[in-house]
Amino acid sequence: MNQGALACRAAGLSTAFPAPHFPSELDADVIAFDSGFAYPKVLPELSQFAINALSAHREESLQYAPPQGSPELRDWIAGYMNADGCQVSADHILIAGGAKHGIDLICRLLLDEGDSLVVTAPTYFTCIPIFRSFGAHVLEVGHDAEGLRVDELAALFNRLKAAGTALPKFVYNVVDFHNPTGATMTLARREALVELCAREGVFIVEDNPYRRVRFTGEAVPTLKALDRDDTVIHVGTFSKLIAPGLRIGWVAAHPELIARMMQLKSDGGACPFTQRIIYDFCRSGAFEAHVTKVQAVYREHRDRMLTAVRRWLPTAAIDEPDGGYYLWLDFPPGFDGDAFAAEAAARKVNILAGSRFFAGPGGGYPRNRGPAANSVRLSYSYETLQRIDEGVERLARIYAKMAA
Amino acid sequence: MNQGALACRAAGLSTAFPAPHFPSELDADVIAFDSGFAYPKVLPELSQFAINALSAHREESLQYAPPQGSPELRDWIAGYMNADGCQVSADHILIAGGAKHGIDLICRLLLDEGDSLVVTAPTYFTCIPIFRSFGAHVLEVGHDAEGLRVDELAALFNRLKAAGTALPKFVYNVVDFHNPTGATMTLARREALVELCAREGVFIVEDNPYRRVRFTGEAVPTLKALDRDDTVIHVGTFSKLIAPGLRIGWVAAHPELIARMMQLKSDGGACPFTQRIIYDFCRSGAFEAHVTKVQAVYREHRDRMLTAVRRWLPTAAIDEPDGGYYLWLDFPPGFDGDAFAAEAAARKVNILAGSRFFAGPGGGYPRNRGPAANSVRLSYSYETLQRIDEGVERLARIYAKMAA
Repeated sequence: MNQGALACRAAGLSTAFPAPHFPSELDADVIAFDSGFAYPKVLPELSQFAINALSAHREESLQYAPPQGSPELRDWIAGYMNADGCQVSADHILIAGGAKHGIDLICRLLLDEGDSLVVTAPTYFTCIPIFRSFGAHVLEVGHDAEGLRVDELAALFNRLKAAGTALPKFVYNVVDFHNPTGATMTLARREALVELCAREGVFIVEDNPYRRVRFTGEAVPTLKALDRDDTVIHVGTFSKLIAPGLRIGWVAAHPELIARMMQLKSDGGACPFTQRIIYDFCRSGAFEAHVTKVQAVYREHRDRMLTAVRRWLPTAAIDEPDGGYYLWLDFPPGFDGDAFAAEAAARKVNILAGSRFFAGPGGGYPRNRGPAANSVRLSYSYETLQRIDEGVERLARIYAKMAA
Repeated sequence: MNQGALACRAAGLSTAFPAPHFPSELDADVIAFDSGFAYPKVLPELSQFAINALSAHREESLQYAPPQGSPELRDWIAGYMNADGCQVSADHILIAGGAKHGIDLICRLLLDEGDSLVVTAPTYFTCIPIFRSFGAHVLEVGHDAEGLRVDELAALFNRLKAAGTALPKFVYNVVDFHNPTGATMTLARREALVELCAREGVFIVEDNPYRRVRFTGEAVPTLKALDRDDTVIHVGTFSKLIAPGLRIGWVAAHPELIARMMQLKSDGGACPFTQRIIYDFCRSGAFEAHVTKVQAVYREHRDRMLTAVRRWLPTAAIDEPDGGYYLWLDFPPGFDGDAFAAEAAARKVNILAGSRFFAGPGGGYPRNRGPAANSVRLSYSYETLQRIDEGVERLARIYAKMAA
């Protein structure tokens, strides 16, 4: 092969295929606590919507479609966000092929090689390689039960300014049921974050896939709802409320940013067929009833896993999440989360080591790593209640053996 | 807004939304000869396949799916390519959200800022901004009725080597029913191109969306079929044979390149639902019968437009294409294709000026532009036979007025 032509970003990439990981690839006896897969039984019945899309909206569904996305779906999303405190219109919305595609487009817009951005420590691990693929420096600030440490962020900005270094292009954060810790950012922190970033001219990328997957407590306004200066670029998705396989998410931002992102969107537009299915599902009575069902089902899953972990893994500290898909387990100091995850995989329980969620030393700033090495993240979304019990029991046996 | 944070690639992008262009956005009296939209009446009946995907394959269709794509569909594609002279397996195939998404992934893999690549003059205009968005220099070589001028490419390589400049990362080409000229590259040129690029360590990106949309003449082996050294990265799509709205295409390349591209693919995988529909359609008897129908329908469209252009626009020189969706019209020297396209749009016939298909002065090399300014491209794919007549007549009236 042309090795000379590969002396570029390709040179740093593995040439091996990833290990099996997705539900369709797993043996039946593997328990998947690793990723935020949908619970199969809560996936909605969409056949009538698909038939309608392929008959009443046949040409729209099968033809090339505008890259900004369906005007009707964009209008619905704007209304959905405005009912949640935002002030946006269809012009603020860009439909993407899932939330990750939206984040990718934001990176294309804002990141040049050598730019920096900020994430929490820990953060959503899938985003770290996306950010790095743009040649960006990933800086970490601390995160606690109240969310991103805005005081640390302000101190970081001050250090950078004192050193004559450019500020980060954006702060990436999951404010509701934070991935991986499950914590929800307080209103005071949210207001402080938006105010700080607006003042300093740094965008905020609010990744909010779990917004409606809330079981307990009152909703706190989204960062986008608090945004007065177009500082916040909001990323939403239908993956958690309808079905991840349909691959439809969105970006909500100032129309000038949306227009620019469209010029960097070279994929020919998100699938108009699945957009039509989602739009018709959303405007039907089925949507709100389905959201209620989703909340009830995942609440039951969370409760079951909390009970099992408290019973079988009592040394793990857990902050009970008010929503989302994940539990973050902190084991006593000295425990090796990486070894635990490796051993669990060998015993056919897939979990993620806490260390996966840290961007690592970035630009010479303190890592704020805290309890990473002795932590793991478990997802309760995919497995049945019975298998949640079984998986946690298996983990407890591994834990006992490792602690012995 | 945070103007400081926009002092990056965003600074060079327009903040205006594009003009209406897609079928769903157009007034009924606008005749769309501009883009390669599917003829609505040739879109297949897919309802039964959608219902099957949402019942027998419900979880697979709606769940997160492996980023390389469905193993069954990859296997089918490998067989489909091998029946056309290639030697690939499912490991060589990466499913993408359409061919443009595949090209985007190839750029991510191979292009660093400042790298160069080669296109024909003219070339598929949509790719030019994709290539430029990676900060790459787009170099042009000439193109004639036999396809890419391999002699010019060799001379370009020699000039670059003599100047101590890095060779291009890849040569991008549409060898079958070239977009926009309609020309099909001869076997001798194909062999020479693959041999030259293999020797010089330059990849070839073979974009071949129209491969099976052939009306006349014998198929010439694809570049991938002639490839002995993994020099060719082939891009295919179901958009032209089934439906563009399903947004499924593929990249075929050495597995080490595929594995690397997967790490740069941050979109969470192409839609498993539309992949399942396509796979079941392809392995049914419906697929080959449908391809035959597609060929017959677009042949009728081509013939109708050829007749109309010869009758109503007799000063336009045309090379009759053996397949694909487009006619390239060269008007006499001095004619202004840009003004013609603008005037046609004002009279509700959308066409593309020939100048759109040239990457412009690139890196100081001769433009080889030839007849760009006095050319236009017409697509015969989307409109009915009657509207093909009507559109060409409208164009003839505009032409007569401009020539007067």
